[in-house]
Amino acid sequence: MAEHSSYTLLDKIQFPKDIRNLSVEKLPQLCEELRHFIITKSAKNPGHLGASLGTVELTVAIHYVFDTPNDKLVWDVGHQAYTHKIITGRKEQFETNRRYKGMSGFPKMSESEYDAFGTGHASTSISATLGMATAARLSGNTSQHHIAVIGDGAMGGGMAFEAMNQAGGTKETMLVILNDNRIAIDENVGAMSQYLLRITSSKSYNRFKKGVWKFFNSRKFIVQAISRLGNSIKGQIVSKSNLFQQLGFRYFGPADGHDVVKLVRILSNLKEIQGPKLLHIVTVKGKGLPLAEENQILYHFPGNYDPDTGELIVPDRHNMPPKYQTVFGETILELALQDERVVGITPAMATGCSLTIMREKLPHRVFDVGIAESHAVTFAAGLAAAGQIPFCNIYSSFLQRSYDQIIHDVALQKLPVIFCIDRAGLVGEDGPTHHGVFDLAFLRSIPNLIIASPRNEAELRNMMFTAYKDRNNPFAIRYPRGNGVMIEWKTPLETLEIGQSKLLKQGKDIAILSLGPLGNNAAQAIDILENKGKTLTHIDVRFLKPLDKKMLDEICTTHHTVITVEDGMVSGGLFTAVSEYIIEKQYNNKVIPIAIPDTFIEHGDIPNLYKLVGFDVEGIVLSIVDH
Amino acid sequence: MAEHSSYTLLDKIQFPKDIRNLSVEKLPQLCEELRHFIITKSAKNPGHLGASLGTVELTVAIHYVFDTPNDKLVWDVGHQAYTHKIITGRKEQFETNRRYKGMSGFPKMSESEYDAFGTGHASTSISATLGMATAARLSGNTSQHHIAVIGDGAMGGGMAFEAMNQAGGTKETMLVILNDNRIAIDENVGAMSQYLLRITSSKSYNRFKKGVWKFFNSRKFIVQAISRLGNSIKGQIVSKSNLFQQLGFRYFGPADGHDVVKLVRILSNLKEIQGPKLLHIVTVKGKGLPLAEENQILYHFPGNYDPDTGELIVPDRHNMPPKYQTVFGETILELALQDERVVGITPAMATGCSLTIMREKLPHRVFDVGIAESHAVTFAAGLAAAGQIPFCNIYSSFLQRSYDQIIHDVALQKLPVIFCIDRAGLVGEDGPTHHGVFDLAFLRSIPNLIIASPRNEAELRNMMFTAYKDRNNPFAIRYPRGNGVMIEWKTPLETLEIGQSKLLKQGKDIAILSLGPLGNNAAQAIDILENKGKTLTHIDVRFLKPLDKKMLDEICTTHHTVITVEDGMVSGGLFTAVSEYIIEKQYNNKVIPIAIPDTFIEHGDIPNLYKLVGFDVEGIVLSIVDH
Repeated sequence: MAEHSSYTLLDKIQFPKDIRNLSVEKLPQLCEELRHFIITKSAKNPGHLGASLGTVELTVAIHYVFDTPNDKLVWDVGHQAYTHKIITGRKEQFETNRRYKGMSGFPKMSESEYDAFGTGHASTSISATLGMATAARLSGNTSQHHIAVIGDGAMGGGMAFEAMNQAGGTKETMLVILNDNRIAIDENVGAMSQYLLRITSSKSYNRFKKGVWKFFNSRKFIVQAISRLGNSIKGQIVSKSNLFQQLGFRYFGPADGHDVVKLVRILSNLKEIQGPKLLHIVTVKGKGLPLAEENQILYHFPGNYDPDTGELIVPDRHNMPPKYQTVFGETILELALQDERVVGITPAMATGCSLTIMREKLPHRVFDVGIAESHAVTFAAGLAAAGQIPFCNIYSSFLQRSYDQIIHDVALQKLPVIFCIDRAGLVGEDGPTHHGVFDLAFLRSIPNLIIASPRNEAELRNMMFTAYKDRNNPFAIRYPRGNGVMIEWKTPLETLEIGQSKLLKQGKDIAILSLGPLGNNAAQAIDILENKGKTLTHIDVRFLKPLDKKMLDEICTTHHTVITVEDGMVSGGLFTAVSEYIIEKQYNNKVIPIAIPDTFIEHGDIPNLYKLVGFDVEGIVLSIVDH
Repeated sequence: MAEHSSYTLLDKIQFPKDIRNLSVEKLPQLCEELRHFIITKSAKNPGHLGASLGTVELTVAIHYVFDTPNDKLVWDVGHQAYTHKIITGRKEQFETNRRYKGMSGFPKMSESEYDAFGTGHASTSISATLGMATAARLSGNTSQHHIAVIGDGAMGGGMAFEAMNQAGGTKETMLVILNDNRIAIDENVGAMSQYLLRITSSKSYNRFKKGVWKFFNSRKFIVQAISRLGNSIKGQIVSKSNLFQQLGFRYFGPADGHDVVKLVRILSNLKEIQGPKLLHIVTVKGKGLPLAEENQILYHFPGNYDPDTGELIVPDRHNMPPKYQTVFGETILELALQDERVVGITPAMATGCSLTIMREKLPHRVFDVGIAESHAVTFAAGLAAAGQIPFCNIYSSFLQRSYDQIIHDVALQKLPVIFCIDRAGLVGEDGPTHHGVFDLAFLRSIPNLIIASPRNEAELRNMMFTAYKDRNNPFAIRYPRGNGVMIEWKTPLETLEIGQSKLLKQGKDIAILSLGPLGNNAAQAIDILENKGKTLTHIDVRFLKPLDKKMLDEICTTHHTVITVEDGMVSGGLFTAVSEYIIEKQYNNKVIPIAIPDTFIEHGDIPNLYKLVGFDVEGIVLSIVDH
C-alpha cells in the first residue's frame, strides 16, 4: 500500500461540512481513502491502529448525519478516533500523532471543538454524554443531539453501567453506539461479552435485524414501526427480552458497522427518536489490513510495519535488557510454579503487563476480570481473605479507579494483596490520561500499606519475592513501562528487609535519594559530576513506606543538601516524606525535589518529556549543580 | 413494646449451631423475638434500624441452612447485619452497638470469624465473595458455600455489575441474594430499580413464582426442574428474558423475604445447584415497626424512639446552630433560585446531604444518580462542559470511589465542577469505613484543583459562593457531619479571595494554623492558654490549595513554632503543605501536626474519638504546651 500523493475525495475534506456536501454514494470511496491514509501514515508513525481501522465507516456516518460540533460526540477511550481527527481539521497534523508537541492520540477538548470531551480511560463516555444531554434539555436546546461511542470491552466497566442505569431511568434523549468488535485490548471476557455474542449469532436476532433494517429503508415506515414498538413495550413490559431494553434503552441492531450507506440511513432515522437508545453495531478490529484483522491483539498497537503487507518491523532486541513487564511475568510464573496459592489478576491488561507468560502455563490461576479495576482489587481481597496469594497487576493511572477498594477492602482489613503497579511514572506518547504520576501520593497516606519501587530488574524480582514472603500487609510495587537495565536479569530471588534502603555510593557533599528506575539516571549524573571533582552520596530508597529513618538520620546529619529523585508528583511522594521527616526531627537540611511539578504533563516521547521535567541525566546534573 | 427480661428461644441462642438444633417450625417465633430484641435495644442505643428489621428472616434462614462460619457469608454495606451479629456470639455486646470500644455497626473480620469480610461501602460483596469462591475451588474445597447478600440500591453500583459480569462469565459457583426492599437510604432510582419493580409486579412472574416454589417443596422435583431449566436454556439461549440470566446467573424469585420457613426450603435447594445463581427476595425495610415501615427514609437511622410506638424522641434543637448540611442545602437553593445554571448532583445521599431542600423547590435541577459515585463525577463534568454549574455533593469516604474521575474527567480538562465534600473528618459511630480522613491527601496532588474547608457556616456559604463565581477551576469544599457554631448563620454571600487565609488572632509565641471547623476547638484552646499568659497567633488557613504563601512567609519569619490543625491524615494535607513550604524556603521553624496519625481510627462517639487523637480542646492545649 504505497503512500498516495493525492486522494480523490479526501484531499477536499477538511471538516465534516465538506463530507456533508458529498452524495451518500461517495462515502464508501471516502472510507476507503481514509483507511488507506491511516494505514500508510501509521506504518511510519505508530499508533492505535486496530481500533481506528474498525471505526472508519461509523465516524464518517456520524459526521455525515449529525451536525457536529453543535451536536456532541464523545468517543469512549478515544483511541479509535483517528478518522474523527482526520476529518475534523487535523488531517495535516495526523503525521504528528502522539508526538511531542504534536496531535494527541486521544480526543482532547483543548485541541478541537469537535472533541466534545477528553477521553483516555474506559467507560466514561455515557456519563459525560448524559451530562451534556441533560444540560441541553435544561437550557431548552432541543435541537442538539448527543452521541456516545463505546466499545464492548468498555461497556463491561462499572461506570458505563452506572450511567446506563441513570439514563435508562430518567429517559434522557441520547444515543449510545455500542461498537462491538468482540475484543478489548485483550480477548474480551465476562458475561456481557458472551451475551453480545449470543445476540449477534442468533438466528432470531438476524431475522429481526433484517426486518427492522427493511423498515429503516423508508422514512414513513420507521415512524410507524417505532410507534408500534413503543406500544408493544408499554403493553408487555416484562417481556422486553433485551438486556439494554431492560435497562430502559431502546435497542437497535445488530448492524454491520462497515456498511457506511446503511449506517447513514440508520442514524438518520434514530435521530428522530426520543429517549435513550442504543445502536449495536458489529465491526472488525483492524479492518482493511488482513494481518491486523487476523492478529487483533498484536495490531492493537503494532508499532512500525510495512504499509503494503502489514508485516511488523520488529526492532532488534538482541542483547537488550528485558522489559520490566517480562520480568514481572517470568517472576510471578516462577513463584506460582513453586506455590500453588499464587494467583495473578489483571483488569483487561494480560498482554500489556505480561501476565500472559503465567497464563500460558497456569491458565486456571490467572484471572482477567475485564475492564473492572474497582472489582479487580476487591476480588483480590476476597482471594487473600481465603488464603491465596494474589498479585494484582494494574497500570498506575488505572489504579486511580481502585482507590476506595485499596483503602476499604484491602488496607483497612490488612489483607496481604500484592499490587504490581505497571506503567508508573511518565508513560510517554499516551500522555496525561495515562501518566502514572499520582500513585505515590495517593497511596502513601493509607495505613498498613507497604510501598516499594525497584531500580532494576533484580530489585523488581526481589520485591515481588519479599511481598510474597511477607503475609502481614498489603504491598505495592510500582515500576515503569519499558526496558530495564540488566542483560543478565534472572538473578536468584532474595528477600529484602522491608523499609531498608540501599547505599549505592558514599560521598559527602550532597546526598541523592532516588526511588525507582530514575535512580539509574541519577547514577549517571553522579558519575559525570564525580569526574568534575564532586563526591556525592547516592541512596536507592527502595521503600517509600515504611521509610528508612535510620538512613535518613545518618544522611541528614552528615550532608547539608539532600536531593530527592522520583517519577511522581512533587507533592505526596518521596520529597514530601523526606521533608516531613526533616521537619519532625528539626534537621536543617536543604531539600531539592526532582519530580513532576504541580501540572499535567503532555504527551510525547520519553526523552523529550524527561528533558521537560528534568529527569534526563543532563537535567539531574543541572539540578545538582544549581542547588 | 416493653423490653423483655427473657426470651423463650433467643435466650438459648448464642451461635448458629444453636439455631440449627431448633425445628424449622420454631423459626418464625425466633424471628419475632429477634425483631423485638432489635427494636427495644435500638430504641435506646440508635442504629441502622430499618435495614436490619428487613433481614431478620433472611439471616436466620441463611445460618440455619448454611454451615457458617465454614461457609462464607458477606453482607453488602453491612448495616443490615444486626440479626447476624446477635446470633453469632454478639447478643450481649449488641447494647454496645456502634459505641466507642463497643461492637462495630458493620461486619468486621477482626470482630468475629462469622464476619467473612468487612463492609461499610456499597457494592463490594459480590467481588469479595467471588474471590472466596474462586479460592475455595482452587484449593479443592468443594463443600464450602459462598453467599453475598446485596440490596437493590447497592446492585446499581458499578462494582456490583463488574463482579456479576465476571461471575456470570466464569460460572463460578456462588449465591447472590438480592434483597429487594425498593429503597436505598433514599428512594431508589435508575433503570435497574424500575426493572426489579416490573418483575415483582408482573402477573406472569407471579405465576412463574408459584410454579417454581411448588417444585421447591419436593427435593426430587427440584432436581428435575433445574435440569429441565438447564436444557431449555441451552436450547434457546437468546430467549433468556431475565437481566440476571443474560448476565450468566441462574435467577430464582421473587420470593417473600419474610417467610422464614419458605426461605429455608429455597436455600436448602439452591445449595445443590452449581454455578452462579441469584435469589431475588422482596422485603420491607423497617418490617415489624409500623412507623418505620411507613417512613422508611426517616427510620433508616431513626435515633432514639419509643420502643412501643416507634415514635421518635427528637432532641430539642431550638436555638442550636444548624447542621452544615442544612447550610449547604439552603445555600445551593439560594444560588439556584438566582441562576438557573446551578444544578445539584448526589449519588444516593439527597437526604443525608440535604440536597432535598433544593429538590423540593427545583426538582428538575437536582439529580440523584443512585449509588454511583464514579458516574456522578463524570456526569457533573459533562454538565460543566455544557455550561451548567454543577455542585456535586459526595461524602468524603465515598469520594474515594471517584478519584480517577476527579483527575481524568474534571481536573485534567479544567472543568469547573464544584465538589461539596460532606462527612469530612472523623464521622463518629460509623467508624473507619466512613471516616473522611483521606480527602485532603488524595486531592492535594491533583493539578488545577482548589481545595477549601470552612471554619463555620458563614465560611461554607462564602466558599460555595466563591466557587460559584469562579468558573475557571474545579473547586472542592470539605465540611463535616453535624452542627456548626453560628445561631445567626444566614449571612450575606461574599466572595473570598481564593487562596487567602484569615488572621483570627495576632500573637507572637506560637502560630496555630487551622483548616476547617477544628479551628473552633483551636480557638478555645488558645483562649485557655491566653488566660495563662501566652500570646498565640491563630490563622484560619481556609484554602489548602492554593496555599497562602504570603501569610506563611510572615508567620514563619515571626514565629518559631507552627502548629497545624486539621481533621485529616497527618501525611498529605496541611501539615505536609506547610512542611514542604518551610523546606522550600529553608525556614527553620518547628512544626507540630495535630492530625490523624498513620492508622485507621475506630468507631465511637466524637468526644471519645477526638480525645483519642487529640482534637478536643484539652488535647490541643496539651499539644501546644508540650511542643
